[in-house]
Amino acid sequence: MRVSIIGLGGIGTSIGLAYQHAELGDLVLGYDVDSEAVWGALALGAIDQPVDSADACADADLIIVATPPQAVPELFRRLAPRLCPETVVTDVVSVKLPVLEWAHASLRHPNRFVGGHPIAGTEQHGYRSARADLFQGAQWVITPTPETDADAVERVERLIRTVRAVPVRMDAAQHDREFALLSFMPHCLAFSLTMLHAENPTLLSGGGSWRSATRVAQSNPELWTELFWLNREATAEWLDALTERLQAISDALRMEDRARLRALLPLARKPS
Amino acid sequence: MRVSIIGLGGIGTSIGLAYQHAELGDLVLGYDVDSEAVWGALALGAIDQPVDSADACADADLIIVATPPQAVPELFRRLAPRLCPETVVTDVVSVKLPVLEWAHASLRHPNRFVGGHPIAGTEQHGYRSARADLFQGAQWVITPTPETDADAVERVERLIRTVRAVPVRMDAAQHDREFALLSFMPHCLAFSLTMLHAENPTLLSGGGSWRSATRVAQSNPELWTELFWLNREATAEWLDALTERLQAISDALRMEDRARLRALLPLARKPS
Repeated sequence: MRVSIIGLGGIGTSIGLAYQHAELGDLVLGYDVDSEAVWGALALGAIDQPVDSADACADADLIIVATPPQAVPELFRRLAPRLCPETVVTDVVSVKLPVLEWAHASLRHPNRFVGGHPIAGTEQHGYRSARADLFQGAQWVITPTPETDADAVERVERLIRTVRAVPVRMDAAQHDREFALLSFMPHCLAFSLTMLHAENPTLLSGGGSWRSATRVAQSNPELWTELFWLNREATAEWLDALTERLQAISDALRMEDRARLRALLPLARKPS
Repeated sequence: MRVSIIGLGGIGTSIGLAYQHAELGDLVLGYDVDSEAVWGALALGAIDQPVDSADACADADLIIVATPPQAVPELFRRLAPRLCPETVVTDVVSVKLPVLEWAHASLRHPNRFVGGHPIAGTEQHGYRSARADLFQGAQWVITPTPETDADAVERVERLIRTVRAVPVRMDAAQHDREFALLSFMPHCLAFSLTMLHAENPTLLSGGGSWRSATRVAQSNPELWTELFWLNREATAEWLDALTERLQAISDALRMEDRARLRALLPLARKPS
């Protein structure tokens, strides 16, 4: 099998490393707009063969699009006329509905597209941050539709298992809603806390709780602007639900209503 | 020197362990309302000698009050008539202004009281979670007032250095304001995210960002109700500042104003 990875950042290169680790004998091609990333991924052994354009990946059995989300629509448009009818395309973007829409808008065989999202990754980035064990035991969502070809889904599930992750089939809209809570809220809060602190410098350093809460503020703000934007409805809904809770706590404190404050915090410590 | 630790939870027992580690030859007495904690701390070597009431600690050179905050006012009242004039009292409560007020209200020699707060600790609790290295390199705030005796401050700073922490003299109000941002906000957010998730269960599990953001939700909600309450003004102010930021992000998303969204996120990734 020929597998092409387009986009050799932390995720794309980790997919390559994990795939090679399985020693299936498949050929792994790789492309990135940044040639340093291509040679880096090759040196790490994440890819077998560099290719010099995204087009040159079009005849693979499986194409993994691991570029930043904003590059995906144009990439789909460029690939579309060159894709073999049997080629399966998947992606790793953290928002699934828009990618599904782009696939349907551009690809000639959208039933060969299977949206994917590995729930793994860190605030690090670039091929240097790649790890062969990044997906070990991680959930990897795929969002096939009723029209998606069964063998295309199987091909992507084979990839997921090969890199030691666990495939989870899910509706794209449900994924986007859940992930906006589980990951977008922590990122939004980390960014906001960090900016609030930058405007209000403290003599004290933050302890463990501060470091945990702000760790992912190191993530790329351009990427996250794009992700919040692409998943704006769910993100806004969770933000509203969260601000309502925080405002209720603030109100209880300002009204000196201790019983109400207590009711807004967890019932009891979970057994550890 | 005779040092008494009243309250043998994670912090009190860790102070004992770290103090004993320094092998100064001082006598460390310990008391807790829970006799299991007393015997546990003794077995760990955190204290040299258990005492059977808080009163019996009153003739120590240094008393470290490490009980939950809500126990402090009554403890001060009980200790007050029995304290030797030279005895120095300190505490470890995460909110400093109220403890200062309690000391002034109850203690006969409030100039022998030095408020303290080690910026250390975890979501764990109880003497079993104690660690001799808990304070290693940590900031330990003390909040002497202009009236506090210089030798009392020195005695507490000696304790702090003995357990390998770094004393930081600070105004109590400034401490309370800063700590409400650095620790109360992360706790408030962790509790709120956890409760929001409990009401909206997801098929997906949270990844690294979720685990970081919610780690301290394991903390004791009764303790945190008390801390938020005691520091309600600063807590409400930071909550308002934070909700304003989150609401602005939500508004930008709902109004589909991408430039505004971008402006609400950090300018650029910090160099790693």
